[in-house]
Amino acid sequence: MPHGDAILELQRMLGDVIATDAGTLAEYAHDKWHASALPEAVALPRSTEEVAEVLKFADAHGIPVTPRGAGVGYVGGCVPVRGGIVLSLERMNRILEINPADGVAVAQAGVLTADLQDACEAQGWFYPPDPASRKESSIGGNIATNAGGPRCLKYGVTRPYVLGLTVVLADGRILRCGGRTHKNKQGFDLVGLFVGSEGMLGVVTEAVLRIIPAPPARAALRASFPQFALCAKAVQDVLQGGHLPCALEITDAFTLAAAREYLGPTVLPADAKGHIIIEIDGQTDAVAAEQRAIADILRAAGATEIITASTAEDVEAIWQLRREFSYSLKATGLTKLNEDIVIPRSRLVELVEFCESMQRETGIPVACFGHSGDGNIHTNIMVLKDARGRDIREPADTLVDRLFQWVVTHGGSITGEHGIGLAKAKWFPQAVGPVALDLHRTLKDALDPNHTLNPGKMGLE
Amino acid sequence: MPHGDAILELQRMLGDVIATDAGTLAEYAHDKWHASALPEAVALPRSTEEVAEVLKFADAHGIPVTPRGAGVGYVGGCVPVRGGIVLSLERMNRILEINPADGVAVAQAGVLTADLQDACEAQGWFYPPDPASRKESSIGGNIATNAGGPRCLKYGVTRPYVLGLTVVLADGRILRCGGRTHKNKQGFDLVGLFVGSEGMLGVVTEAVLRIIPAPPARAALRASFPQFALCAKAVQDVLQGGHLPCALEITDAFTLAAAREYLGPTVLPADAKGHIIIEIDGQTDAVAAEQRAIADILRAAGATEIITASTAEDVEAIWQLRREFSYSLKATGLTKLNEDIVIPRSRLVELVEFCESMQRETGIPVACFGHSGDGNIHTNIMVLKDARGRDIREPADTLVDRLFQWVVTHGGSITGEHGIGLAKAKWFPQAVGPVALDLHRTLKDALDPNHTLNPGKMGLE
Repeated sequence: MPHGDAILELQRMLGDVIATDAGTLAEYAHDKWHASALPEAVALPRSTEEVAEVLKFADAHGIPVTPRGAGVGYVGGCVPVRGGIVLSLERMNRILEINPADGVAVAQAGVLTADLQDACEAQGWFYPPDPASRKESSIGGNIATNAGGPRCLKYGVTRPYVLGLTVVLADGRILRCGGRTHKNKQGFDLVGLFVGSEGMLGVVTEAVLRIIPAPPARAALRASFPQFALCAKAVQDVLQGGHLPCALEITDAFTLAAAREYLGPTVLPADAKGHIIIEIDGQTDAVAAEQRAIADILRAAGATEIITASTAEDVEAIWQLRREFSYSLKATGLTKLNEDIVIPRSRLVELVEFCESMQRETGIPVACFGHSGDGNIHTNIMVLKDARGRDIREPADTLVDRLFQWVVTHGGSITGEHGIGLAKAKWFPQAVGPVALDLHRTLKDALDPNHTLNPGKMGLE
Repeated sequence: MPHGDAILELQRMLGDVIATDAGTLAEYAHDKWHASALPEAVALPRSTEEVAEVLKFADAHGIPVTPRGAGVGYVGGCVPVRGGIVLSLERMNRILEINPADGVAVAQAGVLTADLQDACEAQGWFYPPDPASRKESSIGGNIATNAGGPRCLKYGVTRPYVLGLTVVLADGRILRCGGRTHKNKQGFDLVGLFVGSEGMLGVVTEAVLRIIPAPPARAALRASFPQFALCAKAVQDVLQGGHLPCALEITDAFTLAAAREYLGPTVLPADAKGHIIIEIDGQTDAVAAEQRAIADILRAAGATEIITASTAEDVEAIWQLRREFSYSLKATGLTKLNEDIVIPRSRLVELVEFCESMQRETGIPVACFGHSGDGNIHTNIMVLKDARGRDIREPADTLVDRLFQWVVTHGGSITGEHGIGLAKAKWFPQAVGPVALDLHRTLKDALDPNHTLNPGKMGLE
């Protein structure tokens, strides 16, 4: 191995922080995407100081370091493509403080997001960012990818909830930026520089997070429409009516057909070609009144069936149905290429029509569902199988190319939640343009001159 | 003048974009702070391309460029301390688009914030950031300082509303970053790098802003308390009760006494030592119910007088009273040193007691009021006058030193809204610490290697 002697020296310095057994190396070779690469060592530090020791040593010895949260990303962001050390924050998993009087929570990077949320809720407080992975993804991983989720329509993504960070820089220096105040205009936005930086500019070890009073009530509605275009129009009508729901999710005809296949024909009206789920939260009286007002809007917009949910149990049942939509696609037996594109909200119908036209032309199914309120539509290209049951990958990959091309030329973003990592590096230059790409390189060179941190990602080298 | 020939050449190139007459130079020498310095020229470009021409030329010729929004900052941020060119964005004042279907507004940097808000409201939409200066400050200035305001408690500061930017870099290259989608995880957060960068990393010429449905109803309450500590406790009780008002403003005993002096004794109960103003917004039924619930909380917390406002006129009257509190301090005839410090919310009482103790010790009055919900308390040190009516500045300056020292050691920030500029450069190194200071220099050197943009600010040189 290229860094064998140095790794041995690091192991002597840090003892059981450094693992090199084959089982551990294999475990840290991949995330949820298909790429995989073995590291030479896995570092499992217990403190910011140990992270700093690893980075200082690695930077001085030219060893690549790939930071890793809970390893549940979708773009290969924590795959150690250049070997070296995988630096996992999983042992730094303590919630240090839940402080309603200051409106802050303080957590180490390895805390699972759902655990932090539960700890806040136990005190009547709320940490809003809700990536679908929240039960298995970590605060550090959420910060590295600036994670979103359905409720980000009302509450925003991870960034606005990060008040302060402890970051180990590439050379091992420990930076504390931001703080525990809700406003802070002390110089440049260093916190923002690290949120979403995919482990390429520094390693976040601890975060001070903004928490807000938990809204006392929550309710939901779901509605079926005989045309997708009516459904997309209803999304606009709800917002135009002065409502900002916490979630506003849409599902297309292909996915609904798969759901009827998987869950039985009675789950949805036979003619359902579009479906939306709306969640609202707030003060108790407000939520009931708003639910009625939104139901009126949906009816006027042409909904053929409207189901309302006012108890926690019924609201959960509606979200369970959304998960079942996703399982329905898996139940087709086809591999999904799930692309988390974002489009300007007015282009929802255009996107779905474009996907339907690609499907008619190529025979490859494309299923769209997701966060319609903010235009973040998970677009699933379904990989067909050959006679021997093997994925026919190439034509599906071509469709991804065509999809991204369409997104970029229609004012969209190729990723709203997952990040660039390895998976989207190919399209990154076109998505951001030459000046922005160059500025990425400038920042990388300035903060990590030896390219120690997570090399090989975003196509920067 | 050191760059006289080059300025003449630029004037030949760009014609009436460049002004050098004495009247114009004097007009662009200062903002609302006391510092002043004459530029050698004022550039008044009408397009991003003209901004790029100015910067490319200035960077190549070693001429400092100080960008300027509407010139209403409080920290000398647009004072051209190194001479050269003041680059004013005031002619780029067009609203390019208000698009509810996409949830975006597009504006040139010189658009006044209130004008943008009015244009949104005319279509039933809402751009929340509300700096007190919103009728005279510009979107570009708000972005350069990441402006806040009372409603930021619920809605956040400027950053979360900036989706995309057009930025001219120091060397004249035009960068487009972010875009018009509500989520965007394409690489590093370049938008965030420029928001709050005080014109030191690039010049923002155009912004795509996130707008949200306007809440249909608004209401307010104000309450007086016989002790400031009861008032601070009420702030916590409201939040702990599951309410997130859009504004939650507090006023201390000194300011209230000045108000009774200025407005007459009936304006407030005789024993008022603390006062809060609460604004809520949302759905119509919700707002009425929430107003009742909050009134109950205030009563239980010891309020001796509670005034509610449900019509637009009555709500405005409450805000007018808040402005009168500020005028009351001016009416004392003393100069105010208004410091926009931020403290962790739980330390409100400690801050006021610290200010009272400084006042007892030195005889210099200190008045605290402001955004208690997020701990952003405008702390006004009142400069006493000598027998000939001249400000006795030095002891007041010493109190500012002591205040900032206290803020830094109590987990606070020395500025929540105004920025560092010239005014706070002296305290900046201590406020952020040596590693963060060094990282500011790294970013400055990387993005503006010749230090063309707004040199002499934040104490970086």
